Amino acid sequence: VKLLSLARDLQRRKARERHGLFVAEGVRAVEELLRSPLSVRGALAAPSLASHARGAGVREALAARGVPVTDVEEREFDSAADTESPQGVLAIGVVPARTLADLTLPATARLLLLDGIQDPGNLGTILRTAIAFDFDAVVALPGTVDFWNAKVVRSAAGALFHHPPVPASWEELDEMLEATHTVIWAADAGGDSIDTISHGDLPPRLALAVSNEGAGLSAEARHRVARAVGIPISPEIDSLNVAIAAGILMHRLRS
Amino acid sequence: VKLLSLARDLQRRKARERHGLFVAEGVRAVEELLRSPLSVRGALAAPSLASHARGAGVREALAARGVPVTDVEEREFDSAADTESPQGVLAIGVVPARTLADLTLPATARLLLLDGIQDPGNLGTILRTAIAFDFDAVVALPGTVDFWNAKVVRSAAGALFHHPPVPASWEELDEMLEATHTVIWAADAGGDSIDTISHGDLPPRLALAVSNEGAGLSAEARHRVARAVGIPISPEIDSLNVAIAAGILMHRLRS
Repeated sequence: VKLLSLARDLQRRKARERHGLFVAEGVRAVEELLRSPLSVRGALAAPSLASHARGAGVREALAARGVPVTDVEEREFDSAADTESPQGVLAIGVVPARTLADLTLPATARLLLLDGIQDPGNLGTILRTAIAFDFDAVVALPGTVDFWNAKVVRSAAGALFHHPPVPASWEELDEMLEATHTVIWAADAGGDSIDTISHGDLPPRLALAVSNEGAGLSAEARHRVARAVGIPISPEIDSLNVAIAAGILMHRLRS
Repeated sequence: VKLLSLARDLQRRKARERHGLFVAEGVRAVEELLRSPLSVRGALAAPSLASHARGAGVREALAARGVPVTDVEEREFDSAADTESPQGVLAIGVVPARTLADLTLPATARLLLLDGIQDPGNLGTILRTAIAFDFDAVVALPGTVDFWNAKVVRSAAGALFHHPPVPASWEELDEMLEATHTVIWAADAGGDSIDTISHGDLPPRLALAVSNEGAGLSAEARHRVARAVGIPISPEIDSLNVAIAAGILMHRLRS
């Protein structure tokens, strides 16, 4: 019952931040969590788990990692689950306490800065793309949706557990960028065309900032940016989806 | 009542295909539909429309275009709506009867071929990106999700109404490609790296095929492809999201 009320509580961002915990729902997310280096506090299982092809395997994996499992009724389980088909299993994981100070940047480094990205559906895609293009870290700045909400966790499970984004304030970022001689470039429709930038123009350590499509660069981002870069598009379209723009720019700017 | 039962019926793909009609839900989608060249058969309104800031404006626009409006109870309206917050208005539009034979390709042309893309969330994004990069048409091949389902319509409204994708069989595509000397390249993780392909290597008329991330290229696509092109990624990630891969390739291959 304690795990049940904890899982329910963790549906709220404030509770996740206070406890430093998150919920991974569904068979695949729980499997990914158990394979990751993150700590697992406990798990809830409902009778429906038994009807999933990998249900028994998940139970064994939980037992093998010594994770306490509480069995609950289907209805109780559903009250703690956030996604539509939670498959009768969820696990409570510990949010990794990684900060900017823990990052060690190589001589040539790439960071992705998320400046108030609001749509959870884009977050997981952006994170996976950053890993695909060998970015050294993804930094979640103020105003960005919580990476540890159930929907992002479920869609980005493996990427999120192995490469958790680093939350930071602008002041923490300033310190880190100065200490590491890292330069910020920002995605901005009105910026220099990415098509005209050659690889030789790139600073050795580069942080690319991407923003909410509607709101654009925040004031905090704008006055820290060394160069704005944009992707020329047809006037028929207002803007590219932020995950698409970030993907094209990360592909071009990768080290 | 007739419009109500028609709208309910149009929740099923088969009914949309039989009637050649689709449903646009919500204030923005209906506004976009009324601004587009597509024909509008009728509209349903519920009392909740009155509480939307642009509700009265939508009613006026419907009247100005001579669209018959049926007022229904909230509960009836909800039974015909597919999305979660339909905002008390939906309109029934006519699917444009555009075929490959209607396309006139310029000397340098770019087509995007959708080979069994399954996720509706990606479709709208891919369509918007194709328009942004001035692709001449998007062709929906067998196995691709219906562009006219309510979720895609709502997310891609403007793009979809002004640049409707063209449905085609592989045989229809063969004819058209042969007649227009258009060459198919396909996105494939194992293909030639897109980073090594220069603009001078591109055929004047090029159709880029993109497929379901999980399933990969269909057999039908595979034996028609002149060249496979891929985006090198870290081994830590299985594959890029299909909309991201399509975006990066369209940006590189645009004319």
